[in-house]
Amino acid sequence: MKNYKLIIQYDGTRYYGWQRQPDQLTIQGTLEKVLARMCGESVETFGAGRTDGGVHARGMVANVFMDTDKTPDEIRRYLNRNLPEDIAVCEVREASSGFHARYNAVGKTYCYTCYEGEKGPVFDRRYYYAIEESPDLEKMLAAAEILKGNHNFQNFCTDYMMKKSTVRCVDRIDISRENGYLRFVFHGNGFLRNMVRIMVGTILEVGYGRMTIGEVKEAVTSREHCKAGPTAPAQGLCLMEVEYN
Amino acid sequence: MKNYKLIIQYDGTRYYGWQRQPDQLTIQGTLEKVLARMCGESVETFGAGRTDGGVHARGMVANVFMDTDKTPDEIRRYLNRNLPEDIAVCEVREASSGFHARYNAVGKTYCYTCYEGEKGPVFDRRYYYAIEESPDLEKMLAAAEILKGNHNFQNFCTDYMMKKSTVRCVDRIDISRENGYLRFVFHGNGFLRNMVRIMVGTILEVGYGRMTIGEVKEAVTSREHCKAGPTAPAQGLCLMEVEYN
Repeated sequence: MKNYKLIIQYDGTRYYGWQRQPDQLTIQGTLEKVLARMCGESVETFGAGRTDGGVHARGMVANVFMDTDKTPDEIRRYLNRNLPEDIAVCEVREASSGFHARYNAVGKTYCYTCYEGEKGPVFDRRYYYAIEESPDLEKMLAAAEILKGNHNFQNFCTDYMMKKSTVRCVDRIDISRENGYLRFVFHGNGFLRNMVRIMVGTILEVGYGRMTIGEVKEAVTSREHCKAGPTAPAQGLCLMEVEYN
Repeated sequence: MKNYKLIIQYDGTRYYGWQRQPDQLTIQGTLEKVLARMCGESVETFGAGRTDGGVHARGMVANVFMDTDKTPDEIRRYLNRNLPEDIAVCEVREASSGFHARYNAVGKTYCYTCYEGEKGPVFDRRYYYAIEESPDLEKMLAAAEILKGNHNFQNFCTDYMMKKSTVRCVDRIDISRENGYLRFVFHGNGFLRNMVRIMVGTILEVGYGRMTIGEVKEAVTSREHCKAGPTAPAQGLCLMEVEYN
């Protein structure tokens, strides 16, 4: 059995998220079905993370152990021909047997896109969150400063009770405004469930003046249960890249 | 009754083209339904052209005579709130009573987009024509040179018998290759039905070496019925801009 590393791109609109689930259309389930047909036996993929329903990816990474005579290029071509039009495999390469897409990941980049205006461009309407009012950029940058760094993000995730540790390091939050788009780029060593979307929701609340910097500080430093902002909609979120050493 | 000029953007994927048709979902029909609801009576729009089923637009222009108390900005907001998510109105302004979106148009720009590769980016998959082989750029530029100018394009349109004149002037055909995309930009004083798609199909045939420059010359100059290339698929085509004096 060889171990293969796959880089995958998908429009998450139709899917119930990455993770395989009985009776639900998921990215992982769809990918494993095509791989199983190719190999003549069931295979299990390991994704770098679990994107939620409606979230997109330009650079999801997964690994899979398979027995096949095909070269990596042939595997990629087979997958691209047999996967639906909203999932594409950008790269397939052989990895060392110890490579695990999730455990070996050392960094991830997410991008969250908003469009400011009464109706955004129709062509990428599935990939942004349309906001009518324009939030204040200076306030949002101040909120991002608070969120950056090594923190216990327990108030910035869903079902944190499940996690062993909710400490993560976010070393980069860029916010930029261009041609009506408002983009948030997050880089960190890992992200909890819904963490990026809650950070975006929190930053937007500050930008709208509905939440103070003090409240953000409290939510990210206090061990009490403090309210962060709302969870921004899934469709604006895209997993851009996963890094490995 | 005032005359209004509208600039409209749409993803044509779901539609049977611009033109209103009984029992078919069309852009014009959808727009007129929303305008009629706003005005409390039926209204008729006049489009700058009739894009076919599956063709997109970033700058379709239409005019409409209406009785309404709303300002142009209020009309735009009403339309954007009530139109489906794949149609947006970019601009509404009052026009002179003599303005007609089709008769007054003096120039149009179309863009045709191909993606070269086994599977293109999933995010704009509805807006390009995926081609597996790469056509020769020099050959395509030579074919474009032949097509440029004032010609009788009768062999480059569908049902030309209906038209009074099939003479058109195409003064610009740009072809560029970038990041896997192959883009054709056409500018002219007007285009016949399917004309841009047949020009793209013809240029691609030359790029693949399946048609000669001599055959293109014959198709565009001879008054005999000569075969131009095939009609490229609708989804790669987008009406970019309509010009007026």
